[in-house]
Amino acid sequence: MAELKYEIVETIAVLSESPKGWTKELNLISWNGREAKYDIRDWAPNKEKMGKGVTLTEEDITSLKAALAERK
Amino acid sequence: MAELKYEIVETIAVLSESPKGWTKELNLISWNGREAKYDIRDWAPNKEKMGKGVTLTEEDITSLKAALAERK
Repeated sequence: MAELKYEIVETIAVLSESPKGWTKELNLISWNGREAKYDIRDWAPNKEKMGKGVTLTEEDITSLKAALAERK
Repeated sequence: MAELKYEIVETIAVLSESPKGWTKELNLISWNGREAKYDIRDWAPNKEKMGKGVTLTEEDITSLKAALAERK
């Protein structure tokens, strides 16, 4: 299998934690040395495994922030 | 393959659109008739296919909103 290199540049927020210790996090992640992108994803304790997630651009984050701010 | 039933209860925001017309959206989705959850995911035009995504609880969304609001 191909190797996926990543670096967590910044942990912006831990959104929640499951009973088994997995955390849902908003991070800034650089994938394969590229420019860092926003990423929402589940992580096992100590980042030993990653779950499925979505990558978000600066534009996505700006739209998301505005949409959530409008919602009470 | 098992069938996955879902209903998009509310489209809260379309975050961005790719050149091929896929949209990244924040929706409230009910999966298999269960209580609706927040969901960030890519969708093909006319919702013909769905990409990978994350499901977010009310708690996740509250944390996310606060984290984004604190960020300039």
